[in-house]
Amino acid sequence: MARHLNLYKLNNFEMRHGAILDGATLAYETWGQLNKKKDNAVLILTGLSADSHAASHDEDDVDGWWEYMIGSSKAIDTDKWFVICVSSLGSCKGSTGPCSPEPVTKLPYKFTFPDLTLEDIANSSFEVVQSLGIKKLACVIGPSMGGMSALALILQHPNATKHMINIAAGCHSQPFSTAIRSLQREAILNDVNFNGGNYSSEQWPTQGMKQARKIGMLSYRSSQEWKERFPRSLRQRPSKPFGIEFPVEGYLEYHAEKFVHQFDPISYLYLSRAMDWFDAYDHHHLDNQNPFEAIKMESTLIIGAQTDFLFPPEQQHEIAQLFTQISCPTQLEITNSIQGHDAFLVDKENYSRLVGYFLSQIY
Amino acid sequence: MARHLNLYKLNNFEMRHGAILDGATLAYETWGQLNKKKDNAVLILTGLSADSHAASHDEDDVDGWWEYMIGSSKAIDTDKWFVICVSSLGSCKGSTGPCSPEPVTKLPYKFTFPDLTLEDIANSSFEVVQSLGIKKLACVIGPSMGGMSALALILQHPNATKHMINIAAGCHSQPFSTAIRSLQREAILNDVNFNGGNYSSEQWPTQGMKQARKIGMLSYRSSQEWKERFPRSLRQRPSKPFGIEFPVEGYLEYHAEKFVHQFDPISYLYLSRAMDWFDAYDHHHLDNQNPFEAIKMESTLIIGAQTDFLFPPEQQHEIAQLFTQISCPTQLEITNSIQGHDAFLVDKENYSRLVGYFLSQIY
Repeated sequence: MARHLNLYKLNNFEMRHGAILDGATLAYETWGQLNKKKDNAVLILTGLSADSHAASHDEDDVDGWWEYMIGSSKAIDTDKWFVICVSSLGSCKGSTGPCSPEPVTKLPYKFTFPDLTLEDIANSSFEVVQSLGIKKLACVIGPSMGGMSALALILQHPNATKHMINIAAGCHSQPFSTAIRSLQREAILNDVNFNGGNYSSEQWPTQGMKQARKIGMLSYRSSQEWKERFPRSLRQRPSKPFGIEFPVEGYLEYHAEKFVHQFDPISYLYLSRAMDWFDAYDHHHLDNQNPFEAIKMESTLIIGAQTDFLFPPEQQHEIAQLFTQISCPTQLEITNSIQGHDAFLVDKENYSRLVGYFLSQIY
Repeated sequence: MARHLNLYKLNNFEMRHGAILDGATLAYETWGQLNKKKDNAVLILTGLSADSHAASHDEDDVDGWWEYMIGSSKAIDTDKWFVICVSSLGSCKGSTGPCSPEPVTKLPYKFTFPDLTLEDIANSSFEVVQSLGIKKLACVIGPSMGGMSALALILQHPNATKHMINIAAGCHSQPFSTAIRSLQREAILNDVNFNGGNYSSEQWPTQGMKQARKIGMLSYRSSQEWKERFPRSLRQRPSKPFGIEFPVEGYLEYHAEKFVHQFDPISYLYLSRAMDWFDAYDHHHLDNQNPFEAIKMESTLIIGAQTDFLFPPEQQHEIAQLFTQISCPTQLEITNSIQGHDAFLVDKENYSRLVGYFLSQIY
């Protein structure tokens, strides 16, 4: 990756399931300036397939995955905030993961990479924050997997942040979402080229990765949006029997092709499973206890989309209710976006407005 | 198949895309007695994976796929109605399909089987009805694919039936449903054992068929139902990394295993594509014309389930609206069943009541 990345070395990082990860590196990018009091830091925790390049900056002018959201005078205003985005541990986007060399053998970890949880992603990202001299974040912002990682962060570090913006996430995954992710993992594991993890760039599990991406895409948008985008009138004659005929098939194929070499297959498995493993309730000590009880935060904004069926609105309602119970001022917003789970990436108007207004109120 | 099936021979059957199918056979089963006036016949058109064995009868006491619905004193009361259920053309459940021997070569058709449409399934099933001396059905009943086939029937034979019960279907498939089916087809086509259609019982595309079934199952039930059935507390330790761990994974695996040898892979491809091809609007002659304009029916009952996202309620609303426009007395019922698309198979109370009451009113 030619990209300019800041690197932070994790030493003897203790993972949730007990393993010690030594010599691991986290890649991160920053925007804006940390002020003298070091109280203007915003940490962004990412979705499963995103990396630290959330937006362009002086050293890398390529658009990032949240370009519309982050920058001078944008919702996350870099004239005001010092923004940090970390490539998740395990994600192989500059940070150490299953395709990185194991320190002793120098061979890729593959399945010897220890169990990865969202708690590990949150903890390791917070080490980066602390390494910059920041004791307390002004805000942690997490969409999708990042939203669950944000919960994992505050559950383990109740004083980590003053505020939180939690988007398109839940306290855990519902069985339907787990099923969708399980089928993605199975598609990768079943590809003959996956070969128990011993794939190479010449023998890449292309089919499995494409299938996984397509299954994922079923859950990222909404039926309503596709109905508008892909009218039946645009059917084409397939070039072979059972070839691409319906516009939605061309769309899925295009995105699957684009994705296939962008992500390491084992990394995908580890991150996908981490999402299914996460459960905020694993952090409570007594039955029926509110898992966030120990947390003192000044306010939180919870956002969901009406059409999101991967993390449906009832899950954002649940988070909001738990924060209201602990007397944390909580704003819950369910948008009318038609883009489903991905709305935070594409419905610029709604999400800029909500995130921008919330941040403008806290500093 | 040890099952007792009635067989009907189709001669020079002309298919919608122009091919002539010769010497094809349709398997069907019947319940009850045809009366002298031959005006008490009810035709059931099936869903994609169902066969003619809708319910047990004297010659086959194995429970059928709609056992609760059909029988003496049941909603489709066989003391009153003469019920016919045909295994769809192309389905390889006793009827001719891609795995049947081609008459000249005696080898399985495989991909030389002509393009199959729901119009062909409807037409051929209606030939069976006519062969029994029935000129006009009392009612055609179709759930899921069968609901679209029922529309295909009346669009081609406007006088075929007095009444219709159309369940969990639509005038065509929405892009989201097409995507789900497309991914199922792709899973089968990509299995190395599928081998361009040259699979055998020793080299069966097990993985592809299982994956296809699991993807299908994502769309047959509902997130709500799964949340109730599969609490996270039932997680188990997987026997291998990335093995079955979450209860929903065990459920999908069980059903996939059960399905894998129950259906011919190429048959599945043909029927699945037929569902995506069907479009009631292909049958209108002018833009904005109601495709059902020529149809004279006495009444119709359209049923959907609130939680069905494969054929969501807006699609049953659309059918009902089109029938109301042609001044056909139309009853639209959207049930509160939590079982999604499959509700007609499992929500016995709601569906028995609706179907039973409608039928009791017409005869």
